[in-house]
Formats: sequence, C-alpha cells, structure tokens
Amino acid sequence: MRPEIPGAPETVADVGEFGLIRRLTEGRVQPAATLLGPGDDAAVVTAADGRVVASTDVLVEGVHFRFDWSDPAQVGRKAVAANLADVAAMGAVPTAVLVGLACPATTKTTVLEGLTDGMWTEARRASVGVVGGDMATAPVLVISITALGELRGRAPVTRSGARPGDVLAVSGKLGWSAAGLAVLKRGFRSPVNVVAAHRSPEPDYAAGPRAADAGATAMLDVSDGLLADLGHLCAASGVAVDVRSDLVEVHQRLIDVASALGGDPRHWVLTGGEDHALAATFPDPDAVPDGWRTIGTVTRPGTGPAVTVDGRPYPGATGWQHWR
Amino acid sequence: MRPEIPGAPETVADVGEFGLIRRLTEGRVQPAATLLGPGDDAAVVTAADGRVVASTDVLVEGVHFRFDWSDPAQVGRKAVAANLADVAAMGAVPTAVLVGLACPATTKTTVLEGLTDGMWTEARRASVGVVGGDMATAPVLVISITALGELRGRAPVTRSGARPGDVLAVSGKLGWSAAGLAVLKRGFRSPVNVVAAHRSPEPDYAAGPRAADAGATAMLDVSDGLLADLGHLCAASGVAVDVRSDLVEVHQRLIDVASALGGDPRHWVLTGGEDHALAATFPDPDAVPDGWRTIGTVTRPGTGPAVTVDGRPYPGATGWQHWR
Repeated sequence: MRPEIPGAPETVADVGEFGLIRRLTEGRVQPAATLLGPGDDAAVVTAADGRVVASTDVLVEGVHFRFDWSDPAQVGRKAVAANLADVAAMGAVPTAVLVGLACPATTKTTVLEGLTDGMWTEARRASVGVVGGDMATAPVLVISITALGELRGRAPVTRSGARPGDVLAVSGKLGWSAAGLAVLKRGFRSPVNVVAAHRSPEPDYAAGPRAADAGATAMLDVSDGLLADLGHLCAASGVAVDVRSDLVEVHQRLIDVASALGGDPRHWVLTGGEDHALAATFPDPDAVPDGWRTIGTVTRPGTGPAVTVDGRPYPGATGWQHWR
Repeated sequence: MRPEIPGAPETVADVGEFGLIRRLTEGRVQPAATLLGPGDDAAVVTAADGRVVASTDVLVEGVHFRFDWSDPAQVGRKAVAANLADVAAMGAVPTAVLVGLACPATTKTTVLEGLTDGMWTEARRASVGVVGGDMATAPVLVISITALGELRGRAPVTRSGARPGDVLAVSGKLGWSAAGLAVLKRGFRSPVNVVAAHRSPEPDYAAGPRAADAGATAMLDVSDGLLADLGHLCAASGVAVDVRSDLVEVHQRLIDVASALGGDPRHWVLTGGEDHALAATFPDPDAVPDGWRTIGTVTRPGTGPAVTVDGRPYPGATGWQHWR
C-alpha cells in the first residue's frame, strides 16, 4: 500500500481492487432478472424465451468522453444508455449490463464511484442491474460495457429487412447531443437542456420492442449520426432511403442554439450521433407506432449514394469512424 | 485518411474502423448457438433453459500481456480462455464471446488480425463463436471480453456453497503459467511447454459442468493463484480450507525449471495464477469426478487465516491485486 498523504484525494491505489469492488457493489439492489449478481466468477441473468441479445461497447477517456465536459456520473449514465439502446434496437428488452473499468492507479476513487452511480442511475431507468464487472490498471480510463436483453418471443429486428416501399421512421431526439457538444466546444455550459442531452441522453428503450411489435422490418440505434447509420441500414438491406427534410423535426431550441453559435441545426439533426434515437422501417405507413415519426421512404438502390435527402446526396461528413 | 508510405506496415488508420471490422469478421463460421452474429446492433445467442451466464474481463497491454513475450494470436487465445473459464466455473457450458478492442491509430493491422485469429482458435476449441464486438481509439491496446454460457438446467455453482467436511479438489494444470512467466522474465524462450502454458493456457471447459453434475458445492476459476482464490471461496462460504501439500502434484517439468532458474516449484503451484484451473468442493470424497484431484479439506473457520497448507499459514504473497 502506498503511504497516505493527509488531505490528498483518495486514489484507487489507496483502496485496492478488492476494496473498491466491495465499495462499488455494496448495497445495490438488483432487479428480478438478476438471478445471481456480482461477486462470483460470472453472473446469471434471465433470458426467458431461451435466447439472449448481447452487445458490447468500449469507451475511452479523451476519445468518447471528457471529464471537463461531463462529470463521472454523466459519463457512466451515457455509457450504459448507449449500450442498452443497441439492445432495444433489436426489438429486445434490456435485462442487465456488465462493466469493465481500467484506469491509472492515481485515479481518484470519487471518479469510479461517480461512474458507477451514473451507471446504476441509467440501469434503474431501464429496470436492469449492473450484474458483473472487472477492474484493471491502465494508463488511461477505459470503460467497457456489455448489455444483455431478451426478446420475449419476438423475432430480432435486424438492419437487413428493409424493403423498397417501406416507410422510414425515427423515435427519440435527433441533433440535441450534437448541439450540446457544439455548446461545450465553445466553452459554454448552457442552454442546459442541450448540454444535458449530450451528457446524458435518455433513450426510450421501450420504443424498440414497440416497433418490433408493430412489424418493423429493420431497425438500428442512431449512434454515428442519422444519415451515416441509415447508410449501414441500406448496405445491410440492399436498399436506398430518401429522407424528406420537411418531415424531420428541427426543434426551436436547436435553431436558437445554432443562431447563437453560427451552426446549422438541420446538419446536427441529420448527422449528429449520440442521441441514441432509433430508426426503423415499416411496411405500412399506418403501422408506425406511437412515439415514432415518419421521415422518409425506402426505395430501390440506384447508382448514386444510398442515402439521400429530398432526393439529393447530402453534402459533407455524415458520421464518425475510429482512426480516421 | 493518412498518406500511405510505400513499404510501411499497414496500420489500423490506413484501413479504418469499418474496413477493419469487415476484415476481422469475414469468413468466420459461427456455431449453431449463434442465432445472429456480428454486423448488427447486437448479437443473439441461445440460452436454452431461459438463463444466461455472463462474465467480463478487461486486459491491458503492458499489464496483462506483453507482445515481446506472446504474439498477438497467443494473447487473443488467452484472453478468451480466461473468460470462458469463468463461465465454466459456474458449471455452465460456454456459448459465445463478445470482444471490445481499443488501440492507437498506429497499431499494425497484423496485430489485430493475430489477436482475432487467436480468439477464434480458442472459441473453436470451446465450440463457441465470437458473436460481436466494438472497436475504438485508445493510447494503449485494451481488450475487453465478455463470455456467455448456458446452464442447461443445472443450478449455478457459486463460491458460497462450501461446507465444513467437504473435500477440496482441483482440475487442470497449476503452476505451469507461473513457471513459464519465470522463464520469460529471465529472457529465455524454453522449455517450450511451460512457456506455451503461460502464453496460451488450455482450460478444460467441460470440467466445470462435470463438477456441477457431480454435486460440487462451490467452485471457482483459479486466476489469481490457488491460495488467493481459495481465500475468495472461504470468504464467500464462511469456511476455512486446508491444502495438503502431499496431495498437490508438482510436475517434474516444473521441478526441472525451478532448479535451472532457482525458483520454488511448489510456490508456483500454490500461488501462480493464469493457468485457469478450476477449484471446487464436494460433499462426498467419492463424488470427485474424473479429471479432478482431491487436494485438501474444508473446515470450520478459526481465528487464523482461512487458507492453510498442512495446517499452517502459507508464508509470502498469495495472489495478485490491481493498483497494489
């Protein structure tokens, strides 16, 4: 153990791995889906219909999050939200998350406590538990999250089932996280609601299963940006989509922020990621369920870009790719 | 895209995230348990009896592995093996792994290809698929692995069910990985079999379910070292264990290595981790199944250390803890 310096913030090295695991797991209330929670070699979680949906994400400090823009609890919430949204995008109901945390020995224990509190906040919002995890030493803080879910008898809704003639719809906010990021990048902390949307998006997890029940032919989580993610859907389905800009809601708040900062609010809506909205296609316009908004149509692929806006290619970058 | 330098090794930045994901997932044959593999928001895997077992690990270059001691394929194999062994230690049959990879933009593509090949080698040995993953930019290579499994009607075997009077048994190699590490630390590359045991342990995943079927009362994966991990079992079960050193096999190969390097082969066996042997307790000495060796007994906890060897506390460090 390193000598303790009076008044110095407590670090993970002061407490050690096992002490910290105890502190981060103690007193957490697991939901009924958690048959066996943290503390053993593995967790056991319900998967009622004999299938489990699973998705994993890796988040790196300085790449995916910055503690001068978000506090640890906000980072923890967002990390869990992003992963649970992937499960919901299959039409599944989230059941659990597992968390890997790697960080330097000098990391303050309050950072990991904040992260864990935020993870539990979002987990509770989705009625799931943080059922297991691992901790390790690393030169930079890395969070890995794996979310599990169950389909409850539904067929999974993949990216590959869209057909020409389907309508395209979205559920949830679009562009708010990008607007919040633009605000933070300029050194501001308000308007509070767009900044909050960037720090801790609140996906509507129930929108995924609801779309599945309504007959969605394809669905995905909008994490890289609407047009970029629609590109993935088009590639998987062998279709094209046209987004009608008059159907894409640009909230007055985004217009206000854009006019103050000089940005383009529609660009945020079309290309901003991290709101974790869902996009889906439906064979019948009347089938689009509550909470979903029709924004375009699925067409046959031509020779041009698969994703168009008002029939034309969209100029400029359409999403995020690592190492590029 | 960065300009390509003729003759320079191809980096992940040259190929980009999506190109690399395509290259790493293409042509992989998924087992029947994989209902939906990589390429969508989440994977779908069987969990036949309505429960899924899940465990996650985070591995960091320079902390958990070094590429001057192990090649990428060996690191990938070991990462998957360590996690699948956690699933087996619950008495479950592994069904799938998910992989998160974070690395610098300058990482050679051959490193990630090697890692992935190794992961698939071990996944195939366990008859599971690599069903999903995520890639990200980070200043250091970080691998996160989540393993899934199914209990097929068995009760999970936790760490907390050992009772005084039970016998203690182990399955698999002990001390070989520590001996291999000692060899590598001295700058040698042989004897080949101990070095191989360190680089790519080959857990017997079927030993876990076999112990569960034989009535094991508690079980865990030996990853931190036998005595340290038995300490975890004792703490969870509220018992003590005594290891009988005359029952602990010290292979002649370890004796040879120790005499060449000046180490203590029994210390490797008792405190070396990373072989991913399993330790379990059984109520009936005659119930200890094939492939398991009785090495001691479970007793009532006293005032001294919960884990003893031949009735005495074991001197020296007994395991690994991060940040300490």
